Amino acid sequence: MAHYHETSTLIGADKVEGTDVYNTAGEHLGTIHEIMIDKTSGKVAYAVMSFGGFLGMGEKYHPLPWSTLTYDVNQAGYVVNLSKQQLQDAPVFDEDEETFLSDRAYEKRVHDYYGTTPYWGL
Amino acid sequence: MAHYHETSTLIGADKVEGTDVYNTAGEHLGTIHEIMIDKTSGKVAYAVMSFGGFLGMGEKYHPLPWSTLTYDVNQAGYVVNLSKQQLQDAPVFDEDEETFLSDRAYEKRVHDYYGTTPYWGL
Repeated sequence: MAHYHETSTLIGADKVEGTDVYNTAGEHLGTIHEIMIDKTSGKVAYAVMSFGGFLGMGEKYHPLPWSTLTYDVNQAGYVVNLSKQQLQDAPVFDEDEETFLSDRAYEKRVHDYYGTTPYWGL
Repeated sequence: MAHYHETSTLIGADKVEGTDVYNTAGEHLGTIHEIMIDKTSGKVAYAVMSFGGFLGMGEKYHPLPWSTLTYDVNQAGYVVNLSKQQLQDAPVFDEDEETFLSDRAYEKRVHDYYGTTPYWGL
């Protein structure tokens, strides 16, 4: 395995995927499942967090805007400022609903929910 | 496996990684090895293309700016406008030289070589 999965400024998608996600109370929320990239601009559109399910069945996916994630060295994971209750109310999809990610109305709801600037600009 | 690895506008890093890269003459140049993301901005800094080597030893890595890659459905791979000779002269590193990717002078040379706008702006 190459050593360049992370530098001071860059991180490999492989290293992000599989990383645990916690909230500021230290509760485990899920795991980064996949990085979704905007084909045109090359910006990370979402870090999709998976949670629940068993052997890949029944999992739910939360598209998290990149800027919601802060890496915490102590927890060796990402921290998002989100209670479990807030997470329950956040935009989610399951594996049969992947088309949500190409629906601008859904995407706008995601960014509105997290108060983030959409990757496609304002 | 979830179905949302690709939508009309987004693509999963997992789907990009492992994809073959060709030049416009149809010659196989290498394979996308890893997507490197700028931690601060969430922009894809490079699609690192690997080539050569055997079982991971002796491989060389080319950091390709995202905008150099065009997906070609017929070849089921990315096409870059680069002859094999140009590829030989392009910035490269091996697995012991990963620090190049956090060296702005090296990075500038990469973007100058491909004539691309650096992900950190002008």
